[in-house]
Amino acid sequence: MGVRAFGNRTPSFLPHRSHGVGGWQKCYYAKGMRFLDACLRKKVDTTPVWFMRQAGRYMAEYRKLRAKHTILQLCDTPEAAAEVTLQPIRAFGMDAAILFADILLIVRPMGLKLKFVAGEGPVISPPLRTARDVARLRRFHPEEGMGAVLGAIRLIRKELDGKTPLIGFAGAPFTVASYMIEGGPSKDYRNTKAMMHGAPKLWKKLMTVLSDNTADYLKAQVDAGAQAIQLFDSWVGALSQTDFEKYVKPYSAKIIKAVQRKGVPVIHFGTGTTPFLKSFADTGGDVVGVDWRPPLDVARKIIPAKQAIQGNLDPVHLLLPRPTLKPLVRDVIRRAEGKRGHIFNLGHGIIKETDPETVRAVVDWVHDWTS
Amino acid sequence: MGVRAFGNRTPSFLPHRSHGVGGWQKCYYAKGMRFLDACLRKKVDTTPVWFMRQAGRYMAEYRKLRAKHTILQLCDTPEAAAEVTLQPIRAFGMDAAILFADILLIVRPMGLKLKFVAGEGPVISPPLRTARDVARLRRFHPEEGMGAVLGAIRLIRKELDGKTPLIGFAGAPFTVASYMIEGGPSKDYRNTKAMMHGAPKLWKKLMTVLSDNTADYLKAQVDAGAQAIQLFDSWVGALSQTDFEKYVKPYSAKIIKAVQRKGVPVIHFGTGTTPFLKSFADTGGDVVGVDWRPPLDVARKIIPAKQAIQGNLDPVHLLLPRPTLKPLVRDVIRRAEGKRGHIFNLGHGIIKETDPETVRAVVDWVHDWTS
Repeated sequence: MGVRAFGNRTPSFLPHRSHGVGGWQKCYYAKGMRFLDACLRKKVDTTPVWFMRQAGRYMAEYRKLRAKHTILQLCDTPEAAAEVTLQPIRAFGMDAAILFADILLIVRPMGLKLKFVAGEGPVISPPLRTARDVARLRRFHPEEGMGAVLGAIRLIRKELDGKTPLIGFAGAPFTVASYMIEGGPSKDYRNTKAMMHGAPKLWKKLMTVLSDNTADYLKAQVDAGAQAIQLFDSWVGALSQTDFEKYVKPYSAKIIKAVQRKGVPVIHFGTGTTPFLKSFADTGGDVVGVDWRPPLDVARKIIPAKQAIQGNLDPVHLLLPRPTLKPLVRDVIRRAEGKRGHIFNLGHGIIKETDPETVRAVVDWVHDWTS
Repeated sequence: MGVRAFGNRTPSFLPHRSHGVGGWQKCYYAKGMRFLDACLRKKVDTTPVWFMRQAGRYMAEYRKLRAKHTILQLCDTPEAAAEVTLQPIRAFGMDAAILFADILLIVRPMGLKLKFVAGEGPVISPPLRTARDVARLRRFHPEEGMGAVLGAIRLIRKELDGKTPLIGFAGAPFTVASYMIEGGPSKDYRNTKAMMHGAPKLWKKLMTVLSDNTADYLKAQVDAGAQAIQLFDSWVGALSQTDFEKYVKPYSAKIIKAVQRKGVPVIHFGTGTTPFLKSFADTGGDVVGVDWRPPLDVARKIIPAKQAIQGNLDPVHLLLPRPTLKPLVRDVIRRAEGKRGHIFNLGHGIIKETDPETVRAVVDWVHDWTS
């Protein structure tokens, strides 16, 4: 993997790459350094920690904003998205900020409608079923199609002022395609699997246009200032290993490679990936995000040594009383076998009923126990 | 594992165990023999095939009955349950019949209320949350608490007349406990995991009373005539490997052993078990049922040689046009690496939109390709 420059716009708090690894000083171990170094499996002072969905409904500050705006309004207003992104950083001091956005925003500039229905989740219309539906999908220019998100990234970077690095993200093409085809969340992905197996050329066409758009969008995120990228393949665990390898892996691999060429680390995350974890890791990425199912020491043996690991506390465990939670957090740290190449996170997003004080406690425990 | 007698009531079509393995003749290869022999990894003429939820809504005959009766009415009326059990056998000639019942029936004689709400699934009340809730749970005598199911088994055996063997079943204690604690289906099993970790003694008490009742119930099923037993741990894949091993495995193991002592083969099935498949297999059972995620040849390397494998076509694939489906079925057969110790099945239950003619086609393909 080796050292790479951090994008075209070297973040102000990072030493210029010509300093070399050896020249990086202890004093550079600002929180930002810690996270980005861990992505590249470099030595860090303390295990970095952030949480998927760390900006969200468990925070009173977020709920206050959401009472006045829809999710899409927050995503479409750079100032609001920036504010939400920063809320958990200000409150709990995670080692990385993650852009507030939604993996499905990308379907809009491709020509589909997106709304969020309370209690139901996202609804995409019309759902893609035929060759004509897929042929209509548009390639788009990120600054035109996703301008608000890119604007938010620029604002967030300014606000963070080099103190905490910013993770950009997109949905992986399988997960986004599944929403496009099913028209919303699905229990069994029947239409998605029907296209995959029943119309493999159509599937290829859909995955290609989706991957190309996603790669462009992520590269634009890096240009706007994202210092790392996470590719979310949240529902890929519905697939068999053979389906993953044949119908998904090549497309995700291409996106990951395109983003890495921009010089930022890429985290490849999915839930339910343990059945094909080696293959999932081989898809690429500097960091493999694992859910709560495999013990980290077991996952570490499967994931190639050159890749870092992110995870993997069960998000449900954050609902436990803190004395009960404590040994479970400690177990994750213990199984990570040292702080090189481990980024502490959950196995999936924070649940909205989580007590913010528990989030604070976990950040502090991880920092305390690993420094 | 070795040969065991088939229950106290040796089915009429089976040779008495004293005939020994060598004495069993080719002419015994009635469909029943085929399935039961495959459970014990003995040589068979053709790979046996049956489907989880083979008696159900995809069949017009079933829908006709359901239009007049609730699920619970069907379960509570031995004649109706027997009729539903036999419908797919008459129509498609699977190699085993599986009792029509529900894994949650057991909560009623334990003192809880059960109903099925259209669109929502099962609702159990009151949900178990406190020590008092658990203390109230009753041990029950199967003939009193589950008399209708046992009556159905006796009727079915009479109707099948030794031509097709009958599989009895129960829910594994984790899956049933999760319904009892959550009060119905759950996305993240938050209350179940909270009890597991936050009140481990209470969890132990619940799992103990549930396992004891389940073992008694299954032994009574064997006494009534069930010739094999499947233990369904449908939702165990929500757990991490460590949680499975600590909080679930010992209880399921105890049930499996108790049933095996009755002399019938036990199939241990779960979905999402690939992350801890070795551990799941080591829980016991003559047959390990796997979902569609692991290729069967990969699963075969993980599951100890003494155990047979059941699976593992993706149920969603049955919705495909038959020419598209055919190579997918062939792939399962190919990866099963020969017909010894493989029982063809789906990775989970038949989806209600499945075309009955597709079910017929798969039964025929499996029989044709392996004989």
